[in-house]
Amino acid sequence: VGECQLSMLVFALEVLVVVLYSVFVTYDDQTNALLQNNKTQPLENTVYQDYPFFADIQVMIFIGFGCLLAFFRRYGFGGMVFNFLTATFAIQWAILVQGFFHFYYDGQIHLGVINLINAEFACAVVLISFGAVLGKTSPVQLLVPVFGVTEWIVVEHLKINDAGGSILIHLFACYFGLGVTFILYRPSLNEGHSKEGTTYQSDLLSVLGTLFLWVFWPSFNCALTLRGDDQHRAILHTFIGLSASTLTAFALSALLSKNGKLSMADVQNVTLAGGVTVGASVDMMISPAVAYVLGMLGCTACMLGYKYLSPFLARRLRLQDQCGIHNLHGLTGLISTIAGICAILLASEETYGPSLYQTFSYRAPQQGDPQLGELQKLIPGLEAGLGRTAKEQALYQVVALGSTISISAVGGVLTGLVLKLPYLASPTDEFCFDDELFFNVPLDEDQASESQEPRCSETQITNHQYILQSNFEYHF
Amino acid sequence: VGECQLSMLVFALEVLVVVLYSVFVTYDDQTNALLQNNKTQPLENTVYQDYPFFADIQVMIFIGFGCLLAFFRRYGFGGMVFNFLTATFAIQWAILVQGFFHFYYDGQIHLGVINLINAEFACAVVLISFGAVLGKTSPVQLLVPVFGVTEWIVVEHLKINDAGGSILIHLFACYFGLGVTFILYRPSLNEGHSKEGTTYQSDLLSVLGTLFLWVFWPSFNCALTLRGDDQHRAILHTFIGLSASTLTAFALSALLSKNGKLSMADVQNVTLAGGVTVGASVDMMISPAVAYVLGMLGCTACMLGYKYLSPFLARRLRLQDQCGIHNLHGLTGLISTIAGICAILLASEETYGPSLYQTFSYRAPQQGDPQLGELQKLIPGLEAGLGRTAKEQALYQVVALGSTISISAVGGVLTGLVLKLPYLASPTDEFCFDDELFFNVPLDEDQASESQEPRCSETQITNHQYILQSNFEYHF
Amino acid sequence: VGECQLSMLVFALEVLVVVLYSVFVTYDDQTNALLQNNKTQPLENTVYQDYPFFADIQVMIFIGFGCLLAFFRRYGFGGMVFNFLTATFAIQWAILVQGFFHFYYDGQIHLGVINLINAEFACAVVLISFGAVLGKTSPVQLLVPVFGVTEWIVVEHLKINDAGGSILIHLFACYFGLGVTFILYRPSLNEGHSKEGTTYQSDLLSVLGTLFLWVFWPSFNCALTLRGDDQHRAILHTFIGLSASTLTAFALSALLSKNGKLSMADVQNVTLAGGVTVGASVDMMISPAVAYVLGMLGCTACMLGYKYLSPFLARRLRLQDQCGIHNLHGLTGLISTIAGICAILLASEETYGPSLYQTFSYRAPQQGDPQLGELQKLIPGLEAGLGRTAKEQALYQVVALGSTISISAVGGVLTGLVLKLPYLASPTDEFCFDDELFFNVPLDEDQASESQEPRCSETQITNHQYILQSNFEYHF
Repeated sequence: VGECQLSMLVFALEVLVVVLYSVFVTYDDQTNALLQNNKTQPLENTVYQDYPFFADIQVMIFIGFGCLLAFFRRYGFGGMVFNFLTATFAIQWAILVQGFFHFYYDGQIHLGVINLINAEFACAVVLISFGAVLGKTSPVQLLVPVFGVTEWIVVEHLKINDAGGSILIHLFACYFGLGVTFILYRPSLNEGHSKEGTTYQSDLLSVLGTLFLWVFWPSFNCALTLRGDDQHRAILHTFIGLSASTLTAFALSALLSKNGKLSMADVQNVTLAGGVTVGASVDMMISPAVAYVLGMLGCTACMLGYKYLSPFLARRLRLQDQCGIHNLHGLTGLISTIAGICAILLASEETYGPSLYQTFSYRAPQQGDPQLGELQKLIPGLEAGLGRTAKEQALYQVVALGSTISISAVGGVLTGLVLKLPYLASPTDEFCFDDELFFNVPLDEDQASESQEPRCSETQITNHQYILQSNFEYHF
Repeated sequence: VGECQLSMLVFALEVLVVVLYSVFVTYDDQTNALLQNNKTQPLENTVYQDYPFFADIQVMIFIGFGCLLAFFRRYGFGGMVFNFLTATFAIQWAILVQGFFHFYYDGQIHLGVINLINAEFACAVVLISFGAVLGKTSPVQLLVPVFGVTEWIVVEHLKINDAGGSILIHLFACYFGLGVTFILYRPSLNEGHSKEGTTYQSDLLSVLGTLFLWVFWPSFNCALTLRGDDQHRAILHTFIGLSASTLTAFALSALLSKNGKLSMADVQNVTLAGGVTVGASVDMMISPAVAYVLGMLGCTACMLGYKYLSPFLARRLRLQDQCGIHNLHGLTGLISTIAGICAILLASEETYGPSLYQTFSYRAPQQGDPQLGELQKLIPGLEAGLGRTAKEQALYQVVALGSTISISAVGGVLTGLVLKLPYLASPTDEFCFDDELFFNVPLDEDQASESQEPRCSETQITNHQYILQSNFEYHF
Repeated sequence: VGECQLSMLVFALEVLVVVLYSVFVTYDDQTNALLQNNKTQPLENTVYQDYPFFADIQVMIFIGFGCLLAFFRRYGFGGMVFNFLTATFAIQWAILVQGFFHFYYDGQIHLGVINLINAEFACAVVLISFGAVLGKTSPVQLLVPVFGVTEWIVVEHLKINDAGGSILIHLFACYFGLGVTFILYRPSLNEGHSKEGTTYQSDLLSVLGTLFLWVFWPSFNCALTLRGDDQHRAILHTFIGLSASTLTAFALSALLSKNGKLSMADVQNVTLAGGVTVGASVDMMISPAVAYVLGMLGCTACMLGYKYLSPFLARRLRLQDQCGIHNLHGLTGLISTIAGICAILLASEETYGPSLYQTFSYRAPQQGDPQLGELQKLIPGLEAGLGRTAKEQALYQVVALGSTISISAVGGVLTGLVLKLPYLASPTDEFCFDDELFFNVPLDEDQASESQEPRCSETQITNHQYILQSNFEYHF
């Protein structure tokens, strides 16, 4: 019954999407044959600026996240495949929602690869929050939050500096996910679950996912920054931040474990903390050394969070955070936000030259301000901004921080309440972290040979029968 | 003996290739140092347009296909490694054959990265058809079809619109592969085979392959389209088509399975149907919504094919299609061809502007036609075409469809007959889907420990002996 | 204690790096906002030329190498994760060391993505040499050689033609690694080690690593060549060389194995020989056929090395070369060097035109030479060179070969002596190739049952009862 729901829901969503696409979605200037003519240069089409970053982020979302989430012993299919399902729908939906807010004119949403990149950022929000409830939700339940994060659009409109999405993506996703998991609290899971562990193979696959995220993270952090030196800096800082957090993660993992050994969960998650921590200031002139320090700080906060905060949250605050998103995205996002505010306050024409008003576009003079004309002599294409001072911009960042956390947490709680509706086929505690519930799982070789043994030997060997039986139970 | 044949065949092929390369292959304008001089701009070298797509398609062919084909329980090495071997030789050979037809002048084949992309398309034909006989052929047999698809060149000369290769690649490969498997029919396999299943790990690896194909498919479909907006649309449509077929695959997989659970085989294959279905019209102004609908239609046809048509073909028509290429490439290819014909018939200057005669280059006026001069005022570089009308072009597509199917099927049958020659070391039915025949397979840990068990316990436990024995047989 | 050392060492290194970065590292022209102004074009920022190659090489280093080195039965974590750790630190350190030698002016190291590419080449040296002692070293020991290869800088200054790094990277790394393993000789390992083997899964993962290296190797070989046709040729030759060595590896693997079957170790390593062998002449006009022949030759040498030379070196010369780097990087590097010398001697203006003095930049006339003015009329931007003749350049290559081998071998021996210091937590022979020593390894499903066997079977257990029990626990 549960899967029949999935089929019906998916069909209904597809019909909805196709109707909305046919009514509202058309090509943008860069994809419309009619508007690309002898005055446009094919090789100057924006697709060549956007597609490489789009492809890299696709790898992160479908392969990086997919492998990373496949770490559970018997929930590898779920981790990898539900990530695939959720991401696919989230992008489809985000194209519509973001389209209405950012790419809508002449009564239509105008589509190009740049929309897909924006949609992937929205999708990242969904997938990160998904980490809080991994293994405890049905695929039907996973599709609902896609709508929940629609409110993300609200926060996006605060006009803040956040190139790598530390506030808009990571913090939003984190508190949204915590809101959901707060409502879906399962007391019995605090006692541990027999299928919650990993295997040698699942740990390796998960590290592979980490490495894909690690390698392509610079593309994620720079995809929506200004072309040129801003994008160049974003790549450098992301690499340096990740690099610093990776070393720190190794050091802390060994130091904080009981027996001095490294833990694979740390390698899989904590190494990535630097990518989030540099996010809010990733395109600014923060200097390589500060990017390095941010990586170290973010990683330390993340690691201490895993070690001390997560168990506390789970037991005392009903916040069972399956993948520890509060550590990897919440704490690091907070540090990143603060670092971003400092970088904004310190930014001056001395360091940036007139391009200060490009990197911090809201600080550019408003339309009509004579100063704008002066600046446009220095930078021909400079667009009018909002005339904010550094302090005003810093204030907006603080406001964005507060509203992101509160809006996302409330949204998460509301989404969680919807997910509690009885129709949504939530797995029982026993079937958490278990692919059997949603997939036809193949018998593994050893199991298969075991299950065949009786055939040839049951005449003589009666004590094999129970194996047969246990296999039986296993499959229902 | 079988492998000695492989060695001899490969050496012979290498000598052949190296002789032909040394006599016929030279650099093209873009790779020849002598022709790149102070009148050429290094950064305008075509390598920068072609290499990113080439690299993406390399990932699809060697990693995507390789992992996807590693789904059998005990044929992971075969799937991944024979794919590696076949692809490598297919590209080498295609460089020569396509070179003679497309890049031959002044008595030489002129080589650049663009030839490699073309050769990879030919290679895709081989690998897709390989799917029909996966696990039932020796590596020697796999190298033969590389020559068989040489006739592909014939079809390529029909001058049709088929940017994503739905007709030229997918349909050709499908019917070629079916022709081969028709001849290599093994009645006993219809009863099922003990090694035909998957394992948890092999299913995960195969999904990973699917994800690589999924992520980079836009690069495949756009690599040979016109630069600029055509390429931009090809990327958009491929993404949307895949996205729609993925959702549909999840819905149908749950709906059509006996117990309402998802099947990994569906996730691995059917999700990709949209990439093929948008192929023939991928660079045209079909609108995002139509790309979405094509993805849904292709996926539905593919899924129903797996469920109902494949068993029928295997039992009644001797068409044992191991990977279901008729569903993923044949049925979807047919839909794509029809969609392409509709798009051609509907294409007008109103929608495309004068670039109609670029996207549909065969409709451009012929050399000497005064209309050509008019158009060249609008689009300076426009090349003369064949002066076809929309209806004529549509007719050519139909002819291409018919001739592709018939030529490829006949070619497949003939290739199949060659493969039946006794020297080619075809595996016996028993050793189908079994790496043991061609590889030194490591003892797995559990097997290793099992095989050691008897040492310590054979004195007391007699009923372990059959396990020992089965391990024994298994390893020879 | 060992891991506490790791933590302390890593923290110390991080503090050192962050201090040096903050004092010495700043942005280069392309990343500094102040220097990017209305006279610079954002889209002409070098980041767009460099980042795609950087990303490809990142995939090779972190994913390709990581998976490739995960081939041991019980050292998958070690292979993949220590590669991650070592590569991360090596790049951080190389940014500093190379920065001082190549990017230092105005009292600062100037940083852009181009530095990261250079640092990755240095990192490759470390990782290749790491292959000689894989599984026999602690993570603390692995961080030391990063400093050892600092001397690499010396060789880099010989001003030779070596685009793909056959001499500077592969030969240096090989003899450095051999120097280290010579000192770390463990006689008992010559008798074989119970954990030295592979499993079905580890072999598959390792092949996946090979495929990533194979696919992106052209990016590695061309990243530091001249833009334009030189880079185009480097891509072509690398692809052709790899392609030839892959076919040869299959042929030889079957031919040289006892039972005519393919060995996965050959597929994982020997297929890559061509990438190294074309390295030294990869950007020259050697012709596609010669690239093919180089691939075949390199592969043959590599394969024979694995078969006959490695066992000899291990038993007679104390050179236990765990991954056979002497075959894959040493022998192939030698052939590549010789091929490079031949290509240098044969290079003429007839073949290259005036761009001869770009590809072979040291042959360009010196500053002040009137010939330089002549050439600059043909190639406006041509830089003054060292006025070497072809023969002189060839001689320099020979000198570089000799000094690379001797400097690296001595450096390796010295590094090996440092690694013997008792504080560095070298694993005992018994714990070689064993993740247990450094990681919290999850109990595998089957092990979970095995490890419980003794508990219940000790008491006396007739036959299979313990399996029952463990299955039971497992399934509930």
